[in-house]
Amino acid sequence: MDRAGLDALLLTTPPDVFYVTGFLTRFWESPARPWFVLVPSAGDPVAVIPSIGELLFSTTWVDDIRTWNAPDPNDDGVSLLADAICELVPEHGVLGVPMGLETHLRMPLADLDTLLSRIAPRALGDATAAVQHVREVKSEGEVSAIRESCRIAGVAFDRVPEFARSGCSLDDVFRAFQIACLQAGADWVSYTAGGAGQGGYGDVIAPATQVPLRQGDVLMLDTGLVRAGYFCDFDRNYSIGPPDDDVRRAHAALHKATDAALAGLRPGHTASELHMLMAGSLVADGATPCGGRLGHGLGLSLTEWPSVTPMDRTVLRAGMVLTLEPGVQIAPGRILVHEEVIVLRDSGPELLSPRAPTDLPVLD
Amino acid sequence: MDRAGLDALLLTTPPDVFYVTGFLTRFWESPARPWFVLVPSAGDPVAVIPSIGELLFSTTWVDDIRTWNAPDPNDDGVSLLADAICELVPEHGVLGVPMGLETHLRMPLADLDTLLSRIAPRALGDATAAVQHVREVKSEGEVSAIRESCRIAGVAFDRVPEFARSGCSLDDVFRAFQIACLQAGADWVSYTAGGAGQGGYGDVIAPATQVPLRQGDVLMLDTGLVRAGYFCDFDRNYSIGPPDDDVRRAHAALHKATDAALAGLRPGHTASELHMLMAGSLVADGATPCGGRLGHGLGLSLTEWPSVTPMDRTVLRAGMVLTLEPGVQIAPGRILVHEEVIVLRDSGPELLSPRAPTDLPVLD
Repeated sequence: MDRAGLDALLLTTPPDVFYVTGFLTRFWESPARPWFVLVPSAGDPVAVIPSIGELLFSTTWVDDIRTWNAPDPNDDGVSLLADAICELVPEHGVLGVPMGLETHLRMPLADLDTLLSRIAPRALGDATAAVQHVREVKSEGEVSAIRESCRIAGVAFDRVPEFARSGCSLDDVFRAFQIACLQAGADWVSYTAGGAGQGGYGDVIAPATQVPLRQGDVLMLDTGLVRAGYFCDFDRNYSIGPPDDDVRRAHAALHKATDAALAGLRPGHTASELHMLMAGSLVADGATPCGGRLGHGLGLSLTEWPSVTPMDRTVLRAGMVLTLEPGVQIAPGRILVHEEVIVLRDSGPELLSPRAPTDLPVLD
Repeated sequence: MDRAGLDALLLTTPPDVFYVTGFLTRFWESPARPWFVLVPSAGDPVAVIPSIGELLFSTTWVDDIRTWNAPDPNDDGVSLLADAICELVPEHGVLGVPMGLETHLRMPLADLDTLLSRIAPRALGDATAAVQHVREVKSEGEVSAIRESCRIAGVAFDRVPEFARSGCSLDDVFRAFQIACLQAGADWVSYTAGGAGQGGYGDVIAPATQVPLRQGDVLMLDTGLVRAGYFCDFDRNYSIGPPDDDVRRAHAALHKATDAALAGLRPGHTASELHMLMAGSLVADGATPCGGRLGHGLGLSLTEWPSVTPMDRTVLRAGMVLTLEPGVQIAPGRILVHEEVIVLRDSGPELLSPRAPTDLPVLD
């Protein structure tokens, strides 16, 4: 914060607030109320929150909790927040707000305008780097939490043959998979995605339909389940009946690309160099890499910066948790993706997800 | 939009985008990428979206889909969006953005600044009322979808005696309840909350702990499960062993307050008058209403406007889906809440949730 010239941070999103305070609740699902945490460059944080959160917030280490009865159509916490900012930030100081890539401000835009006029001449500054630089390196406690989420998902993936076979509809498979995640110990399942199609799927973000699986389909399931506030994010592929040669080759190429990253990645590499490691391996194998990013940060949300793309020059450091997510296009509209979770150590990647099998598992 | 003087809307959040386009995905869970939909005051919408969403978006009714390879640290869709706005909004026109109560803009703040300079002299206008006035009245198709979500949750609530009893830990009860929701047909369970405590609970937003239920506890479970993109949101209370008299009285007062709203609410009442109906019934029964809101809109997100508070003067109209959520304080730190879902008809409320039993159910 000092380097960025920020006198305080204003945090408004679930992961930023949880990171600083330990305040964990699914109540964020309700968009009705804004929540604010101020972190001064010296001294203790101040929470400016709806009164419905007071009791739970009082169980965190934050002592200075100021509440209002939200939602208030006349003043939804803005005056209370402005007063707190004026206490913490000198008159010609700067209030840091994450405003860069992969951020958003979780409060009404009109209230931001009012706030800025109330706290003038204090200025806003970009706190994206200040927040991300700290959050992107995980503590050992955080690594353990992510490892545990990955372990739980691994147990659920191992059970997929129990409920996915030819004739099962994809939406029922998604439901059964979420049930398996909960039975294995997930607190909740914030994200499930997947796809299924003959010799590869077209899309990895569509909700499941009632179309039944059939021989020749490749099924992919992906999950971001949550345990103790921390996400996992990895996927697994399954072939319904024996896979075609091109599917088998694509799966082998993906596995090899992940191996290349597991073997070659070191602290000091950039995200774009990690992209090159995996894309290069795919191309060397005669495969066509998918256009999108081939991995990303992970932790308090399903995806975090950096992005494993040719454009992201973020330097990867020991302690970062990342997904390795190579994807190949087998033919137009037919892709195969694969994902693992690692923590980067001084010596290279340590897997947090149980490694996918070398050969594509075959279901009935 | 004409009345508000808006030449186009810029929509960025999952419910607004789904409402206009039918684009439904859990991929919003990833905060990495912004998504934009422009709705001109005349003519067809334009989607400006990350290329990863192109295939799924092409299954909606929107024909004009413009994509970029997100996340792009140099230009994350801003130029593409600015060009589209300049096509749709006249040079001295106004771009509407929801910026009022219960809204936020899901894009980086720095990108908004860049966008505004690119589209100048076009101005921003507040689209909150324009969006909310349309979205708050549900079509019969939407009412059916919410009714189905409520029915599914009702099946899960009926199964609570199977997995909640003295000695069970609250986190396992939460897991089992989510499993029951999925088994009953939920596509996913975006929200589960609850509480348990001797003679009432203190908090309704805390995540579950491993504390076991014991005789004398009141258990509350609340869910916002999703089916076909639509939420339910209601809760049920259970007594572990026979309830004390004050718990029994509180539950009866809550049930009666809901009855008062079911009998007395009519289109034309304001949200504050609905608050008065329920709070008045509680007070007449000698109970102390909780300070927060006693209900809210519901549909594409867990909570929507209006808020059933003394301050919200929104006029309630036929077709609105609302929760009735009276709460009472039995003693400091001991509350009891209750919630049902209704659609307001010309003749009064129609229940969408299966009505809670008059007497508090008793578990072992």
